[in-house]
Amino acid sequence: MSSKLVAWDRLVRYIPEKGANEVRYGEPILEDPDADVASLASTGNLQVRVLEGFDPLKAIPTGQLDTVKELLGPLEPKDVPIIRCVGLNYKTHILETGRPLPESPTVFTKPAPAVAGHGEDIPIPPIAQDECDYEGELVVLIGKSGKDITEEDALEYVAAYTAGNDVSARDWQRQPAKAGPVPQWTFSKSFDKYAPLGPCLVASHVLGAADDLSLKTLVNGEVRQNGNTGDLCFGVRKLIAFCSQGQTLQKGSLIMTGTPGGVGLFMKPPLFLKHGDEVTVDISRIGRLTNRVLF
Amino acid sequence: MSSKLVAWDRLVRYIPEKGANEVRYGEPILEDPDADVASLASTGNLQVRVLEGFDPLKAIPTGQLDTVKELLGPLEPKDVPIIRCVGLNYKTHILETGRPLPESPTVFTKPAPAVAGHGEDIPIPPIAQDECDYEGELVVLIGKSGKDITEEDALEYVAAYTAGNDVSARDWQRQPAKAGPVPQWTFSKSFDKYAPLGPCLVASHVLGAADDLSLKTLVNGEVRQNGNTGDLCFGVRKLIAFCSQGQTLQKGSLIMTGTPGGVGLFMKPPLFLKHGDEVTVDISRIGRLTNRVLF
Repeated sequence: MSSKLVAWDRLVRYIPEKGANEVRYGEPILEDPDADVASLASTGNLQVRVLEGFDPLKAIPTGQLDTVKELLGPLEPKDVPIIRCVGLNYKTHILETGRPLPESPTVFTKPAPAVAGHGEDIPIPPIAQDECDYEGELVVLIGKSGKDITEEDALEYVAAYTAGNDVSARDWQRQPAKAGPVPQWTFSKSFDKYAPLGPCLVASHVLGAADDLSLKTLVNGEVRQNGNTGDLCFGVRKLIAFCSQGQTLQKGSLIMTGTPGGVGLFMKPPLFLKHGDEVTVDISRIGRLTNRVLF
Repeated sequence: MSSKLVAWDRLVRYIPEKGANEVRYGEPILEDPDADVASLASTGNLQVRVLEGFDPLKAIPTGQLDTVKELLGPLEPKDVPIIRCVGLNYKTHILETGRPLPESPTVFTKPAPAVAGHGEDIPIPPIAQDECDYEGELVVLIGKSGKDITEEDALEYVAAYTAGNDVSARDWQRQPAKAGPVPQWTFSKSFDKYAPLGPCLVASHVLGAADDLSLKTLVNGEVRQNGNTGDLCFGVRKLIAFCSQGQTLQKGSLIMTGTPGGVGLFMKPPLFLKHGDEVTVDISRIGRLTNRVLF
Protein backbone atom coordinates (compact mmCIF):
# COMPACT_ATOMS: atom_id res chain seq x y z
CA MET A 1 0.00 0.00 0.00
CA SER A 2 1.48 3.33 -1.00
CA SER A 3 -0.21 5.66 1.49
CA LYS A 4 -2.47 5.52 4.51
CA LEU A 5 -5.89 7.14 4.21
CA VAL A 6 -6.51 7.03 7.97
CA ALA A 7 -4.36 7.62 11.07
CA TRP A 8 -5.51 4.45 12.89
CA ASP A 9 -5.29 0.69 12.35
CA ARG A 10 -8.66 -0.07 13.94
CA LEU A 11 -11.43 2.29 15.00
CA VAL A 12 -14.32 1.81 17.40
CA ARG A 13 -17.08 4.21 18.47
CA TYR A 14 -18.08 3.87 22.11
CA ILE A 15 -19.23 5.35 25.38
CA PRO A 16 -16.39 5.41 27.95
CA GLU A 17 -16.64 3.94 31.44
CA LYS A 18 -15.47 7.17 33.10
CA GLY A 19 -16.55 10.71 32.45
CA ALA A 20 -19.57 12.09 30.71
CA ASN A 21 -21.95 9.87 28.78
CA GLU A 22 -20.40 11.13 25.55
CA VAL A 23 -19.69 9.19 22.39
CA ARG A 24 -16.05 8.91 21.31
CA TYR A 25 -13.87 7.31 18.67
CA GLY A 26 -10.98 5.15 19.87
CA GLU A 27 -8.25 2.81 18.66
CA PRO A 28 -8.37 -0.54 20.49
CA ILE A 29 -5.25 -1.56 22.41
CA LEU A 30 -5.02 -5.28 21.69
CA GLU A 31 -2.55 -7.98 22.69
CA ASP A 32 -3.73 -10.06 19.76
CA PRO A 33 -4.34 -7.45 17.04
CA ASP A 34 -7.00 -9.70 15.49
CA ALA A 35 -9.01 -10.24 18.70
CA ASP A 36 -12.76 -9.55 18.58
CA VAL A 37 -13.35 -6.11 20.08
CA ALA A 38 -17.02 -6.88 20.69
CA SER A 39 -16.23 -9.81 23.01
CA LEU A 40 -13.61 -7.76 24.87
CA ALA A 41 -16.03 -4.84 25.26
CA SER A 42 -18.83 -7.06 26.54
CA THR A 43 -16.66 -8.19 29.46
CA GLY A 44 -15.34 -4.69 30.22
CA ASN A 45 -11.90 -5.57 28.86
CA LEU A 46 -11.58 -3.22 25.89
CA GLN A 47 -9.05 -0.42 26.37
CA VAL A 48 -8.65 2.20 23.67
CA ARG A 49 -6.48 5.15 22.80
CA VAL A 50 -8.92 8.06 22.34
CA LEU A 51 -9.15 9.40 18.77
CA GLU A 52 -9.96 13.08 18.36
CA GLY A 53 -12.47 14.38 15.80
CA PHE A 54 -16.04 14.02 14.60
CA ASP A 55 -15.35 12.18 11.34
CA PRO A 56 -14.06 8.60 11.55
CA LEU A 57 -11.95 9.16 8.42
CA LYS A 58 -10.18 12.14 10.02
CA ALA A 59 -9.93 10.92 13.63
CA ILE A 60 -6.42 11.38 15.09
CA PRO A 61 -4.84 9.44 17.99
CA THR A 62 -4.32 11.28 21.29
CA GLY A 63 -2.38 10.26 24.40
CA GLN A 64 -5.59 9.68 26.40
CA LEU A 65 -6.76 6.16 27.33
CA ASP A 66 -10.34 4.94 27.96
CA THR A 67 -12.07 1.73 28.96
CA VAL A 68 -15.11 1.05 26.80
CA LYS A 69 -18.44 0.89 28.67
CA GLU A 70 -20.63 0.44 25.62
CA LEU A 71 -19.49 -0.43 22.12
CA LEU A 72 -21.47 1.28 19.32
CA GLY A 73 -21.25 0.91 15.56
CA PRO A 74 -18.27 2.65 13.93
CA LEU A 75 -20.39 4.56 11.40
CA GLU A 76 -23.54 6.68 11.58
CA PRO A 77 -25.97 7.64 8.78
CA LYS A 78 -24.31 11.09 8.56
CA ASP A 79 -20.98 9.45 7.63
CA VAL A 80 -22.35 7.44 4.69
CA PRO A 81 -23.66 9.11 1.49
CA ILE A 82 -24.88 5.82 0.01
CA ILE A 83 -24.33 2.07 0.21
CA ARG A 84 -23.78 0.05 -2.96
CA CYS A 85 -24.61 -3.62 -2.51
CA VAL A 86 -23.73 -6.58 -4.68
CA GLY A 87 -25.96 -9.57 -5.41
CA LEU A 88 -24.87 -13.21 -5.47
CA ASN A 89 -21.05 -12.98 -5.40
CA TYR A 90 -19.58 -16.12 -3.79
CA LYS A 91 -18.43 -18.60 -6.44
CA THR A 92 -19.23 -21.83 -4.59
CA HIS A 93 -22.72 -20.61 -3.85
CA ILE A 94 -23.42 -19.42 -7.43
CA LEU A 95 -22.21 -22.74 -8.89
CA GLU A 96 -24.27 -24.63 -6.27
CA THR A 97 -27.42 -22.93 -7.58
CA GLY A 98 -26.58 -24.31 -11.04
CA ARG A 99 -25.91 -20.91 -12.60
CA PRO A 100 -22.78 -19.92 -14.52
CA LEU A 101 -20.54 -17.27 -12.95
CA PRO A 102 -21.83 -13.81 -13.98
CA GLU A 103 -19.80 -11.54 -16.24
CA SER A 104 -20.69 -8.40 -14.23
CA PRO A 105 -21.88 -7.86 -10.67
CA THR A 106 -25.49 -7.02 -9.84
CA VAL A 107 -25.54 -3.67 -8.02
CA PHE A 108 -28.28 -2.17 -5.88
CA THR A 109 -28.28 0.38 -3.06
CA LYS A 110 -29.32 1.18 0.48
CA PRO A 111 -29.80 4.81 1.59
CA ALA A 112 -27.95 6.44 4.52
CA PRO A 113 -30.73 5.87 7.11
CA ALA A 114 -30.16 2.13 6.66
CA VAL A 115 -26.90 2.46 8.61
CA ALA A 116 -27.08 0.99 12.12
CA GLY A 117 -24.49 0.10 14.73
CA HIS A 118 -23.22 -2.96 16.53
CA GLY A 119 -25.65 -3.89 19.28
CA GLU A 120 -28.52 -1.79 17.98
CA ASP A 121 -31.89 -3.47 17.68
CA ILE A 122 -33.22 -3.59 14.10
CA PRO A 123 -36.91 -2.67 13.98
CA ILE A 124 -38.69 -4.80 11.35
CA PRO A 125 -41.63 -2.81 9.92
CA PRO A 126 -45.04 -4.53 9.84
CA ILE A 127 -44.96 -4.91 6.04
CA ALA A 128 -41.58 -6.69 6.16
CA GLN A 129 -42.19 -9.32 8.84
CA ASP A 130 -43.20 -12.28 6.65
CA GLU A 131 -39.84 -13.15 5.14
CA CYS A 132 -37.11 -11.32 7.06
CA ASP A 133 -33.64 -12.65 6.25
CA TYR A 134 -29.94 -12.02 6.98
CA GLU A 135 -26.92 -11.73 4.67
CA GLY A 136 -23.49 -11.55 6.33
CA GLU A 137 -21.08 -9.48 4.23
CA LEU A 138 -17.64 -7.89 4.06
CA VAL A 139 -18.09 -4.11 3.74
CA VAL A 140 -15.68 -1.67 2.05
CA LEU A 141 -15.42 1.97 3.22
CA ILE A 142 -14.37 4.37 0.45
CA GLY A 143 -11.85 6.87 1.87
CA LYS A 144 -11.57 9.36 -0.96
CA SER A 145 -13.88 10.16 -3.85
CA GLY A 146 -12.92 8.65 -7.19
CA LYS A 147 -14.19 7.71 -10.65
CA ASP A 148 -12.92 5.41 -13.40
CA ILE A 149 -10.61 3.71 -10.91
CA THR A 150 -8.43 0.87 -12.22
CA GLU A 151 -8.19 -2.48 -10.40
CA GLU A 152 -4.53 -1.68 -9.87
CA ASP A 153 -5.28 1.60 -8.06
CA ALA A 154 -8.46 0.41 -6.32
CA LEU A 155 -7.02 -0.12 -2.83
CA GLU A 156 -5.80 3.48 -2.73
CA TYR A 157 -9.49 4.46 -2.43
CA VAL A 158 -10.28 2.03 0.41
CA ALA A 159 -10.02 3.51 3.89
CA ALA A 160 -11.17 0.45 5.83
CA TYR A 161 -13.34 -2.63 6.09
CA THR A 162 -16.06 -3.73 8.47
CA ALA A 163 -18.66 -6.47 8.78
CA GLY A 164 -22.27 -5.87 7.77
CA ASN A 165 -25.64 -7.54 7.59
CA ASP A 166 -27.68 -6.87 4.43
CA VAL A 167 -31.06 -7.38 6.12
CA SER A 168 -33.64 -8.27 3.46
CA ALA A 169 -37.43 -8.62 3.08
CA ARG A 170 -37.52 -11.58 0.68
CA ASP A 171 -41.20 -11.19 -0.20
CA TRP A 172 -40.65 -7.59 -1.37
CA GLN A 173 -37.59 -8.83 -3.25
CA ARG A 174 -39.14 -11.80 -5.04
CA GLN A 175 -42.92 -12.24 -4.79
CA PRO A 176 -44.58 -11.01 -8.00
CA ALA A 177 -47.54 -9.46 -6.11
CA LYS A 178 -45.10 -7.24 -4.21
CA ALA A 179 -41.91 -6.98 -6.27
CA GLY A 180 -43.59 -7.15 -9.67
CA PRO A 181 -42.73 -9.53 -12.51
CA VAL A 182 -38.95 -9.53 -11.88
CA PRO A 183 -37.06 -9.48 -8.57
CA GLN A 184 -36.03 -6.09 -7.23
CA TRP A 185 -33.55 -5.29 -4.54
CA THR A 186 -33.86 -1.68 -3.52
CA PHE A 187 -37.13 -1.26 -1.63
CA SER A 188 -36.85 -4.69 0.00
CA LYS A 189 -33.48 -3.90 1.59
CA SER A 190 -33.68 -0.17 2.29
CA PHE A 191 -35.65 0.00 5.53
CA ASP A 192 -34.17 2.12 8.33
CA LYS A 193 -31.34 0.27 10.13
CA TYR A 194 -31.28 -2.57 7.56
CA ALA A 195 -27.49 -2.23 7.29
CA PRO A 196 -26.00 -2.83 10.74
CA LEU A 197 -22.21 -2.40 10.64
CA GLY A 198 -19.33 -3.17 12.98
CA PRO A 199 -17.99 -3.96 15.46
CA CYS A 200 -14.99 -1.88 14.29
CA LEU A 201 -13.33 -0.48 11.20
CA VAL A 202 -10.04 -2.11 10.18
CA ALA A 203 -7.81 0.02 7.93
CA SER A 204 -6.94 -1.18 4.45
CA HIS A 205 -3.24 -0.73 5.29
CA VAL A 206 -3.84 -3.63 7.72
CA LEU A 207 -6.11 -5.90 5.62
CA GLY A 208 -4.94 -5.12 2.06
CA ALA A 209 -7.50 -6.50 -0.41
CA ALA A 210 -9.27 -8.43 2.41
CA ASP A 211 -9.21 -11.48 0.18
CA ASP A 212 -8.65 -14.25 2.70
CA LEU A 213 -11.00 -13.65 5.61
CA SER A 214 -13.37 -16.24 7.00
CA LEU A 215 -16.98 -15.06 7.17
CA LYS A 216 -19.60 -16.75 9.33
CA THR A 217 -23.18 -15.75 10.08
CA LEU A 218 -24.85 -17.14 13.19
CA VAL A 219 -28.51 -16.97 14.19
CA ASN A 220 -29.01 -17.37 17.94
CA GLY A 221 -25.54 -18.94 18.06
CA GLU A 222 -26.12 -21.47 15.25
CA VAL A 223 -23.80 -21.21 12.23
CA ARG A 224 -25.82 -20.58 9.06
CA GLN A 225 -23.29 -19.10 6.64
CA ASN A 226 -19.65 -20.14 6.46
CA GLY A 227 -17.51 -18.74 3.68
CA ASN A 228 -14.24 -17.03 2.91
CA THR A 229 -13.73 -13.75 1.05
CA GLY A 230 -11.19 -15.56 -1.14
CA ASP A 231 -14.22 -17.16 -2.81
CA LEU A 232 -15.64 -13.82 -4.01
CA CYS A 233 -16.40 -13.88 -7.72
CA PHE A 234 -15.80 -10.11 -7.86
CA GLY A 235 -13.26 -9.17 -5.19
CA VAL A 236 -12.71 -5.71 -3.71
CA ARG A 237 -10.47 -4.44 -6.54
CA LYS A 238 -12.85 -5.62 -9.25
CA LEU A 239 -15.93 -4.19 -7.50
CA ILE A 240 -14.34 -0.75 -7.15
CA ALA A 241 -13.20 -0.76 -10.78
CA PHE A 242 -16.63 -1.88 -11.99
CA CYS A 243 -18.77 0.43 -9.84
CA SER A 244 -16.61 3.50 -10.55
CA GLN A 245 -16.95 3.33 -14.35
CA GLY A 246 -18.44 6.73 -15.16
CA GLN A 247 -19.74 6.95 -11.58
CA THR A 248 -18.13 8.84 -8.72
CA LEU A 249 -17.72 6.69 -5.62
CA GLN A 250 -18.19 9.30 -2.90
CA LYS A 251 -15.88 9.51 0.10
CA GLY A 252 -17.62 7.78 2.99
CA SER A 253 -19.77 5.58 0.77
CA LEU A 254 -19.78 1.83 1.27
CA ILE A 255 -19.73 -1.26 -0.88
CA MET A 256 -21.32 -4.38 0.64
CA THR A 257 -19.62 -7.17 -1.27
CA GLY A 258 -22.31 -9.86 -1.34
CA THR A 259 -23.10 -12.91 0.74
CA PRO A 260 -22.14 -16.62 0.68
CA GLY A 261 -24.60 -19.54 0.74
CA GLY A 262 -26.72 -20.30 3.79
CA VAL A 263 -29.32 -17.55 3.88
CA GLY A 264 -32.72 -18.43 5.34
CA LEU A 265 -34.44 -18.15 1.97
CA PHE A 266 -32.58 -21.13 0.51
CA MET A 267 -32.94 -23.46 3.49
CA LYS A 268 -35.34 -26.36 2.93
CA PRO A 269 -37.90 -25.34 4.01
CA PRO A 270 -37.01 -21.61 4.12
CA LEU A 271 -36.31 -20.41 7.65
CA PHE A 272 -36.89 -16.70 8.17
CA LEU A 273 -35.99 -14.54 11.16
CA LYS A 274 -38.53 -14.04 13.92
CA HIS A 275 -39.00 -11.47 16.69
CA GLY A 276 -36.01 -11.36 19.03
CA ASP A 277 -33.61 -13.43 16.89
CA GLU A 278 -29.99 -12.47 17.32
CA VAL A 279 -27.82 -12.37 14.20
CA THR A 280 -24.01 -12.33 14.40
CA VAL A 281 -21.75 -11.69 11.43
CA ASP A 282 -18.25 -12.87 12.34
CA ILE A 283 -15.38 -11.95 10.02
CA SER A 284 -11.85 -12.93 10.98
CA ARG A 285 -9.58 -9.96 11.86
CA ILE A 286 -12.67 -7.66 11.96
CA GLY A 287 -14.77 -9.17 14.73
CA ARG A 288 -18.33 -10.12 15.58
CA LEU A 289 -21.21 -7.80 14.70
CA THR A 290 -24.36 -8.70 16.66
CA ASN A 291 -27.89 -7.33 16.41
CA ARG A 292 -31.37 -8.46 17.36
CA VAL A 293 -34.34 -8.07 15.04
CA LEU A 294 -37.51 -6.75 16.72
CA PHE A 295 -40.90 -7.26 15.07
CA MET B 1 -52.11 22.90 1.74
CA SER B 2 -51.72 23.62 5.43
CA SER B 3 -48.25 25.17 5.53
CA LYS B 4 -45.53 26.34 3.17
CA LEU B 5 -42.19 24.52 3.34
CA VAL B 6 -40.39 27.17 1.28
CA ALA B 7 -40.51 30.98 1.09
CA TRP B 8 -40.74 31.15 -2.73
CA ASP B 9 -43.21 30.05 -5.41
CA ARG B 10 -40.56 29.28 -8.01
CA LEU B 11 -36.78 29.08 -7.64
CA VAL B 12 -34.02 29.28 -10.22
CA ARG B 13 -30.23 29.10 -9.84
CA TYR B 14 -28.34 31.39 -12.18
CA ILE B 15 -25.45 33.67 -12.95
CA PRO B 16 -26.57 37.36 -13.06
CA GLU B 17 -25.88 39.70 -15.96
CA LYS B 18 -24.34 42.37 -13.73
CA GLY B 19 -21.80 41.98 -10.99
CA ALA B 20 -19.41 39.18 -10.19
CA ASN B 21 -19.63 35.84 -11.95
CA GLU B 22 -21.27 34.38 -8.86
CA VAL B 23 -24.06 31.83 -8.67
CA ARG B 24 -27.31 32.95 -7.02
CA TYR B 25 -30.80 31.72 -6.25
CA GLY B 26 -33.72 33.83 -7.46
CA GLU B 27 -37.49 33.90 -7.77
CA PRO B 28 -38.60 34.60 -11.35
CA ILE B 29 -40.78 37.68 -11.89
CA LEU B 30 -43.30 36.45 -14.46
CA GLU B 31 -46.27 38.09 -16.19
CA ASP B 32 -47.64 34.64 -16.92
CA PRO B 33 -46.75 32.64 -13.78
CA ASP B 34 -46.60 29.44 -15.83
CA ALA B 35 -44.23 30.79 -18.52
CA ASP B 36 -41.12 28.73 -19.31
CA VAL B 37 -38.19 30.33 -17.46
CA ALA B 38 -35.68 28.60 -19.74
CA SER B 39 -37.05 30.31 -22.88
CA LEU B 40 -37.13 33.68 -21.13
CA ALA B 41 -33.58 33.26 -19.86
CA SER B 42 -32.27 32.25 -23.30
CA THR B 43 -33.42 35.58 -24.76
CA GLY B 44 -32.17 37.67 -21.83
CA ASN B 45 -35.71 38.29 -20.60
CA LEU B 46 -35.72 36.59 -17.22
CA GLN B 47 -35.85 38.97 -14.25
CA VAL B 48 -35.69 37.59 -10.74
CA ARG B 49 -35.97 38.71 -7.15
CA VAL B 50 -32.71 37.58 -5.51
CA LEU B 51 -33.09 34.87 -2.86
CA GLU B 52 -30.58 34.85 -0.03
CA GLY B 53 -28.96 31.68 1.28
CA PHE B 54 -26.96 28.65 0.23
CA ASP B 55 -29.70 26.02 0.52
CA PRO B 56 -32.60 26.17 -1.95
CA LEU B 57 -34.99 24.95 0.75
CA LYS B 58 -34.04 27.84 3.04
CA ALA B 59 -33.57 30.62 0.47
CA ILE B 60 -35.37 33.85 1.46
CA PRO B 61 -36.57 36.66 -0.86
CA THR B 62 -34.69 39.97 -0.75
CA GLY B 63 -35.53 43.35 -2.31
CA GLN B 64 -32.74 43.03 -4.88
CA LEU B 65 -33.50 42.40 -8.59
CA ASP B 66 -31.31 40.65 -11.20
CA THR B 67 -31.46 39.84 -14.87
CA VAL B 68 -30.37 36.24 -15.53
CA LYS B 69 -27.31 35.85 -17.78
CA GLU B 70 -27.07 32.06 -17.53
CA LEU B 71 -29.71 29.73 -16.15
CA LEU B 72 -28.31 26.73 -14.22
CA GLY B 73 -30.09 23.76 -12.67
CA PRO B 74 -31.91 24.47 -9.40
CA LEU B 75 -30.21 21.64 -7.48
CA GLU B 76 -26.62 20.48 -7.04
CA PRO B 77 -25.34 17.07 -5.86
CA LYS B 78 -24.71 18.55 -2.38
CA ASP B 79 -28.44 19.31 -2.02
CA VAL B 80 -29.63 15.77 -2.75
CA PRO B 81 -28.92 12.81 -0.41
CA ILE B 82 -30.40 10.25 -2.81
CA ILE B 83 -32.84 9.95 -5.71
CA ARG B 84 -35.55 7.29 -5.64
CA CYS B 85 -36.82 6.42 -9.10
CA VAL B 86 -39.93 4.56 -10.14
CA GLY B 87 -40.20 2.13 -13.05
CA LEU B 88 -43.10 1.92 -15.52
CA ASN B 89 -45.76 4.16 -13.93
CA TYR B 90 -48.03 5.62 -16.67
CA LYS B 91 -51.24 3.60 -17.00
CA THR B 92 -51.77 3.98 -20.75
CA HIS B 93 -48.22 2.87 -21.40
CA ILE B 94 -48.37 -0.14 -19.05
CA LEU B 95 -51.65 -1.33 -20.58
CA GLU B 96 -50.20 -0.77 -24.09
CA THR B 97 -47.42 -3.23 -23.29
CA GLY B 98 -50.09 -5.81 -22.47
CA ARG B 99 -49.27 -5.99 -18.75
CA PRO B 100 -51.75 -5.58 -15.91
CA LEU B 101 -51.35 -2.52 -13.68
CA PRO B 102 -48.84 -3.33 -10.90
CA GLU B 103 -49.92 -3.55 -7.26
CA SER B 104 -46.77 -1.80 -6.02
CA PRO B 105 -44.26 0.51 -7.68
CA THR B 106 -40.79 -0.66 -8.73
CA VAL B 107 -38.22 1.46 -6.92
CA PHE B 108 -34.54 1.97 -7.74
CA THR B 109 -32.07 4.75 -6.99
CA LYS B 110 -29.54 7.17 -8.41
CA PRO B 111 -26.74 8.56 -6.19
CA ALA B 112 -26.11 12.28 -5.56
CA PRO B 113 -23.40 12.69 -8.26
CA ALA B 114 -26.08 11.87 -10.85
CA VAL B 115 -27.61 15.33 -10.28
CA ALA B 116 -26.98 17.74 -13.17
CA GLY B 117 -28.44 21.10 -14.13
CA HIS B 118 -30.43 22.62 -16.97
CA GLY B 119 -28.12 23.27 -19.91
CA GLU B 120 -25.31 21.05 -18.67
CA ASP B 121 -23.87 18.57 -21.12
CA ILE B 122 -24.27 14.93 -20.04
CA PRO B 123 -21.07 12.97 -20.63
CA ILE B 124 -21.91 9.43 -21.77
CA PRO B 125 -19.15 7.06 -20.60
CA PRO B 126 -17.61 4.72 -23.21
CA ILE B 127 -19.29 1.63 -21.70
CA ALA B 128 -22.74 3.26 -21.93
CA GLN B 129 -22.76 4.51 -25.53
CA ASP B 130 -24.49 1.58 -27.25
CA GLU B 131 -28.03 2.07 -25.99
CA CYS B 132 -28.32 5.52 -24.41
CA ASP B 133 -31.94 6.52 -23.80
CA TYR B 134 -34.06 9.31 -22.25
CA GLU B 135 -36.99 9.21 -19.84
CA GLY B 136 -38.82 12.49 -19.19
CA GLU B 137 -40.22 12.58 -15.64
CA LEU B 138 -41.94 14.70 -13.01
CA VAL B 139 -39.61 14.99 -9.99
CA VAL B 140 -40.65 15.48 -6.35
CA LEU B 141 -38.38 17.32 -3.89
CA ILE B 142 -38.85 16.19 -0.27
CA GLY B 143 -38.78 19.26 1.99
CA LYS B 144 -38.66 17.67 5.43
CA SER B 145 -37.57 14.22 6.56
CA GLY B 146 -40.36 11.77 7.26
CA LYS B 147 -41.23 8.09 7.65
CA ASP B 148 -44.50 6.10 7.58
CA ILE B 149 -46.23 9.04 5.91
CA THR B 150 -49.91 8.60 5.03
CA GLU B 151 -51.29 9.50 1.60
CA GLU B 152 -53.35 12.15 3.33
CA ASP B 153 -50.29 13.86 4.85
CA ALA B 154 -47.96 13.24 1.90
CA LEU B 155 -48.02 16.73 0.38
CA GLU B 156 -46.87 18.25 3.66
CA TYR B 157 -43.50 16.63 2.96
CA VAL B 158 -43.20 17.94 -0.61
CA ALA B 159 -41.28 21.21 -0.95
CA ALA B 160 -41.42 21.48 -4.73
CA TYR B 161 -41.43 19.84 -8.14
CA THR B 162 -39.14 19.98 -11.14
CA ALA B 163 -38.65 18.21 -14.46
CA GLY B 164 -36.00 15.51 -14.84
CA ASN B 165 -34.50 13.12 -17.35
CA ASP B 166 -33.79 9.60 -16.09
CA VAL B 167 -30.94 8.95 -18.55
CA SER B 168 -30.52 5.20 -18.99
CA ALA B 169 -28.06 2.71 -20.50
CA ARG B 170 -30.53 0.11 -21.79
CA ASP B 171 -27.92 -2.58 -22.44
CA TRP B 172 -26.75 -2.46 -18.81
CA GLN B 173 -30.39 -2.52 -17.77
CA ARG B 174 -31.55 -5.44 -19.90
CA GLN B 175 -28.92 -7.44 -21.78
CA PRO B 176 -28.20 -10.68 -19.90
CA ALA B 177 -24.46 -10.50 -20.64
CA LYS B 178 -24.30 -7.16 -18.86
CA ALA B 179 -27.29 -6.97 -16.50
CA GLY B 180 -27.37 -10.68 -15.66
CA PRO B 181 -30.40 -12.98 -15.92
CA VAL B 182 -32.98 -10.35 -14.81
CA PRO B 183 -33.13 -6.62 -15.60
CA GLN B 184 -31.50 -4.27 -13.14
CA TRP B 185 -31.89 -0.56 -12.84
CA THR B 186 -29.26 0.84 -10.52
CA PHE B 187 -25.89 0.61 -12.30
CA SER B 188 -27.43 1.38 -15.70
CA LYS B 189 -28.89 4.69 -14.55
CA SER B 190 -26.39 5.92 -11.95
CA PHE B 191 -23.63 7.45 -14.06
CA ASP B 192 -22.50 10.96 -13.13
CA LYS B 193 -24.96 13.61 -14.40
CA TYR B 194 -27.56 10.99 -15.44
CA ALA B 195 -30.28 12.97 -13.62
CA PRO B 196 -30.44 16.44 -15.19
CA LEU B 197 -33.04 18.57 -13.37
CA GLY B 198 -34.75 21.91 -14.02
CA PRO B 199 -35.27 24.48 -15.32
CA CYS B 200 -36.74 25.65 -11.99
CA LEU B 201 -38.34 24.39 -8.79
CA VAL B 202 -42.07 25.08 -8.40
CA ALA B 203 -43.37 24.96 -4.82
CA SER B 204 -45.98 22.40 -3.82
CA HIS B 205 -48.16 25.22 -2.47
CA VAL B 206 -48.42 26.23 -6.16
CA LEU B 207 -48.79 22.81 -7.83
CA GLY B 208 -50.55 20.77 -5.14
CA ALA B 209 -50.35 17.07 -6.04
CA ALA B 210 -49.07 17.94 -9.56
CA ASP B 211 -51.65 15.54 -10.95
CA ASP B 212 -52.67 17.31 -14.13
CA LEU B 213 -49.51 18.47 -15.87
CA SER B 214 -48.71 17.70 -19.49
CA LEU B 215 -45.31 16.06 -19.96
CA LYS B 216 -43.50 15.97 -23.30
CA THR B 217 -40.01 14.80 -24.19
CA LEU B 218 -38.39 16.07 -27.38
CA VAL B 219 -35.22 14.86 -29.06
CA ASN B 220 -33.67 17.50 -31.33
CA GLY B 221 -37.07 19.22 -31.34
CA GLU B 222 -39.11 16.11 -32.28
CA VAL B 223 -41.79 15.04 -29.79
CA ARG B 224 -41.11 11.49 -28.57
CA GLN B 225 -43.07 11.29 -25.30
CA ASN B 226 -46.42 12.96 -24.71
CA GLY B 227 -48.26 12.22 -21.49
CA ASN B 228 -50.01 13.78 -18.52
CA THR B 229 -49.25 13.26 -14.85
CA GLY B 230 -52.96 12.54 -14.34
CA ASP B 231 -52.21 9.17 -15.97
CA LEU B 232 -49.74 8.11 -13.25
CA CYS B 233 -50.59 4.69 -11.84
CA PHE B 234 -48.97 5.70 -8.53
CA GLY B 235 -49.33 9.46 -8.08
CA VAL B 236 -47.26 11.68 -5.79
CA ARG B 237 -49.26 10.94 -2.63
CA LYS B 238 -49.16 7.17 -3.20
CA LEU B 239 -45.43 7.15 -4.00
CA ILE B 240 -44.56 9.04 -0.83
CA ALA B 241 -46.75 6.77 1.29
CA PHE B 242 -45.30 3.64 -0.31
CA CYS B 243 -41.62 4.65 -0.27
CA SER B 244 -41.75 5.93 3.33
CA GLN B 245 -43.02 2.66 4.85
CA GLY B 246 -40.30 1.87 7.40
CA GLN B 247 -37.89 4.07 5.42
CA THR B 248 -36.97 7.66 6.20
CA LEU B 249 -37.31 9.93 3.18
CA GLN B 250 -34.52 12.39 3.82
CA LYS B 251 -34.99 16.13 3.45
CA GLY B 252 -33.59 17.13 0.07
CA SER B 253 -34.04 13.68 -1.46
CA LEU B 254 -35.94 13.29 -4.71
CA ILE B 255 -38.51 10.94 -6.16
CA MET B 256 -38.51 10.62 -9.95
CA THR B 257 -42.04 9.47 -10.68
CA GLY B 258 -41.58 7.34 -13.81
CA THR B 259 -41.92 7.94 -17.52
CA PRO B 260 -44.74 7.64 -20.11
CA GLY B 261 -44.54 5.72 -23.40
CA GLY B 262 -42.28 6.83 -26.23
CA VAL B 263 -38.75 6.03 -25.03
CA GLY B 264 -36.19 5.11 -27.68
CA LEU B 265 -36.02 1.49 -26.51
CA PHE B 266 -39.60 0.76 -27.53
CA MET B 267 -39.54 2.46 -30.93
CA LYS B 268 -39.57 0.08 -33.88
CA PRO B 269 -36.71 -0.28 -34.52
CA PRO B 270 -35.25 1.08 -31.25
CA LEU B 271 -33.77 4.54 -31.68
CA PHE B 272 -31.08 5.41 -29.16
CA LEU B 273 -29.42 8.75 -28.48
CA LYS B 274 -26.23 9.66 -30.32
CA HIS B 275 -23.44 12.16 -29.73
CA GLY B 276 -24.72 15.72 -29.63
CA ASP B 277 -28.43 14.92 -29.40
CA GLU B 278 -30.44 17.50 -27.47
CA VAL B 279 -33.14 16.22 -25.13
CA THR B 280 -35.87 18.52 -23.77
CA VAL B 281 -38.30 17.53 -21.03
CA ASP B 282 -41.22 19.97 -21.10
CA ILE B 283 -43.69 19.90 -18.21
CA SER B 284 -46.51 22.46 -18.12
CA ARG B 285 -46.19 25.04 -15.31
CA ILE B 286 -42.58 23.86 -14.65
CA GLY B 287 -40.84 24.59 -17.95
CA ARG B 288 -38.41 23.10 -20.43
CA LEU B 289 -35.30 21.25 -19.22
CA THR B 290 -32.75 20.89 -22.03
CA ASN B 291 -29.45 19.00 -22.14
CA ARG B 292 -27.15 17.58 -24.80
CA VAL B 293 -25.60 14.14 -24.50
CA LEU B 294 -21.89 14.01 -25.40
CA PHE B 295 -20.26 10.67 -26.26
